Amino acid sequence: MERWDHVSPAELAILETIFWSAGVSRAELAQHTEFSRSKANNAVASLLERGMLDETGPQASSGGRRAETLLLSRSLGYVAAIDLGATSLDVALMTPDLTVLAHHAEPADVGAGPGVILSRVREILRELRERCKVRREQIFAIGMGAPGPVEFGSGLLFAPPIMPGWEGFSIREYLGDEYRAPAYIDNDVNVMAMGELWRTHRRVPNLIVVKVGTGIGCGIVCNGMIYRGADGSAGDVGHICVDPNGLRCHCGNQGCVEVMAAAPAIARMGTEAAREGQSAMLAEVLASKGVITPEDVGNASRSGDTTANAIVKLAGTLIGQMLASAVNFFNPSQVLISGGVSRIGPLFLAAIRQSIYHRSLALSTRHLEIQYAPLGERAGIIGAGALALHETLRRRGRMP
Amino acid sequence: MERWDHVSPAELAILETIFWSAGVSRAELAQHTEFSRSKANNAVASLLERGMLDETGPQASSGGRRAETLLLSRSLGYVAAIDLGATSLDVALMTPDLTVLAHHAEPADVGAGPGVILSRVREILRELRERCKVRREQIFAIGMGAPGPVEFGSGLLFAPPIMPGWEGFSIREYLGDEYRAPAYIDNDVNVMAMGELWRTHRRVPNLIVVKVGTGIGCGIVCNGMIYRGADGSAGDVGHICVDPNGLRCHCGNQGCVEVMAAAPAIARMGTEAAREGQSAMLAEVLASKGVITPEDVGNASRSGDTTANAIVKLAGTLIGQMLASAVNFFNPSQVLISGGVSRIGPLFLAAIRQSIYHRSLALSTRHLEIQYAPLGERAGIIGAGALALHETLRRRGRMP
Repeated sequence: MERWDHVSPAELAILETIFWSAGVSRAELAQHTEFSRSKANNAVASLLERGMLDETGPQASSGGRRAETLLLSRSLGYVAAIDLGATSLDVALMTPDLTVLAHHAEPADVGAGPGVILSRVREILRELRERCKVRREQIFAIGMGAPGPVEFGSGLLFAPPIMPGWEGFSIREYLGDEYRAPAYIDNDVNVMAMGELWRTHRRVPNLIVVKVGTGIGCGIVCNGMIYRGADGSAGDVGHICVDPNGLRCHCGNQGCVEVMAAAPAIARMGTEAAREGQSAMLAEVLASKGVITPEDVGNASRSGDTTANAIVKLAGTLIGQMLASAVNFFNPSQVLISGGVSRIGPLFLAAIRQSIYHRSLALSTRHLEIQYAPLGERAGIIGAGALALHETLRRRGRMP
Repeated sequence: MERWDHVSPAELAILETIFWSAGVSRAELAQHTEFSRSKANNAVASLLERGMLDETGPQASSGGRRAETLLLSRSLGYVAAIDLGATSLDVALMTPDLTVLAHHAEPADVGAGPGVILSRVREILRELRERCKVRREQIFAIGMGAPGPVEFGSGLLFAPPIMPGWEGFSIREYLGDEYRAPAYIDNDVNVMAMGELWRTHRRVPNLIVVKVGTGIGCGIVCNGMIYRGADGSAGDVGHICVDPNGLRCHCGNQGCVEVMAAAPAIARMGTEAAREGQSAMLAEVLASKGVITPEDVGNASRSGDTTANAIVKLAGTLIGQMLASAVNFFNPSQVLISGGVSRIGPLFLAAIRQSIYHRSLALSTRHLEIQYAPLGERAGIIGAGALALHETLRRRGRMP
């Protein structure tokens, strides 16, 4: 890692620009960094010489001489990315330009505790390394998303409601036993937001990623950076009130958007509709399976079941109402919808959109885009890799 | 202004640190900028030589040799600050360390249009300059807050509801006829937030200032900078819904916090209480004056009138409910309450606090301070001066 030791501020600005742009020409570099061509070229030459950049085939050009593309060098090593969900575990090995070399996904129960989960992470990482012939020392950055509140500075989880046994457990130290690379751990939604920000090449500096699953949470990008708030709990929107007279939530308040519209609420409304004879389709599912899941409600809605449609619309409307508050307050350029529940059908997104447009100021929605998160299920793993790489650059060069 | 032309990045970092700290020693400068002592000292020496810094008497020291305090030099010139409210106009002349040399306040009707208001601004500025013996050319930065949505880049107002005739009017050009100094115009609440941020020496990087008057709006400080959002409408929280079945607002929706809890709502509830015989005290005011103002409700509440107390509490609770959404989303360190309505009595702040703590996550309120904005009515004028000075530094040196 010695080559990192003598990186100048100008060289670090070049490295960071290349990270965000995922491949760039010398002319674009000078433009982005506002350096003179000669200053940018000198920094690039020095980085190429030390093996920190690779130069690859000509970029598609608008005419004239074709430009070479500069990338973070593969000789820097590899990035390990881990995306832990409530019920799933994804692990990937990536190059420094975030190309995925190998990816493994499997079901997991986060409630099994850190010992079980993290020893499995280490096993999978070893398998992936063997498959790609990557040595342990070649991993130079590790990034991980976890489904609970994380104190980002220490990498420790803070009173994670669905992760008993994880509080105070140092994932960083555990992984540090095997890898000398620094490990960066963040909340799953922040990691997804980092993935989407990287995807836009940081050209959308203010955006929100909302994840709707068992709970509801937001990742916030502000001025081109993940915004975590004063205590790291920014974006924890599940307990925003959407109806002062609504259902009682486990937090003690009434009408939290989570208790009214997340996955368990959709399953509950579906079950009630089945029991009360409002939907023959859902009644049939309940009779045959014994339970109704949000997917069942989504399937019934897609088949035209009126009651299922009403449930999907209600959930979307309430989530949209919460997001309208966020849009009025934060005025982002994009609201990206993700998480398991986002797949319950087109009416869901339509209801969210209608509710946000209805409830937000015209000025705030003039240019607002509301859509499914483009990286979809890959946002977490790409974001974990992007987080690891970006934090490593920042720590090396003390970037702001 | 030639001395601005050859300011190095290191010198600009020094100037900006001095701006935020409002007086600092050489040792503190080196610490804040993370420059070596010799690099910081060289930059300071060069700035002193060119008359951009002043060195004043020894700072209170914790022991040992007393340190000199460095300030932006008075020889740079003067800052003009303008704080335009819906019904008031404040103008001040300040030194580069934001010491107020002269300040004039008078009632004004913003609805009279830009011609009337701004010619009065120019008159007052001339009077203040004469009083302080400041020549026109000595004004090097102008800052202004206005009670409507502002497109900050252009300085133009955008569809300002209470400012007919101002849309598209260039305040910048109008003032530019008399002053060569750059003029920066922003929304009144953003300007107040800038004032409070400067007051904290930027040590509270994430805070919200909420102004409750005829309308309700927020100024947002994010990572030590005013956050304006994608379209400049961030913080426009007046139409966040606090009751889906609440009163109809002029925006067409039901239950907006503004229609439920701002000054007109408090006056309306007071008037109803007087008419319906719920409050003898308010009935008496209505009989003698013909109208009830929020101040009347506040006075009745302070005298122990039960109905007036209930009105003040209800307004505070609803505003607190809206702020709880903002706190859950944004996780600031401070929520600062300001505006005319904030003076209607101690029950108002108590109800806001109770509502925020009740409705927000424990993690988000662990270190949260909720209080009246410490600069009070001076926040606008101080903020306008701070905005002018900071933007001038940024433009000179292209600071981020």
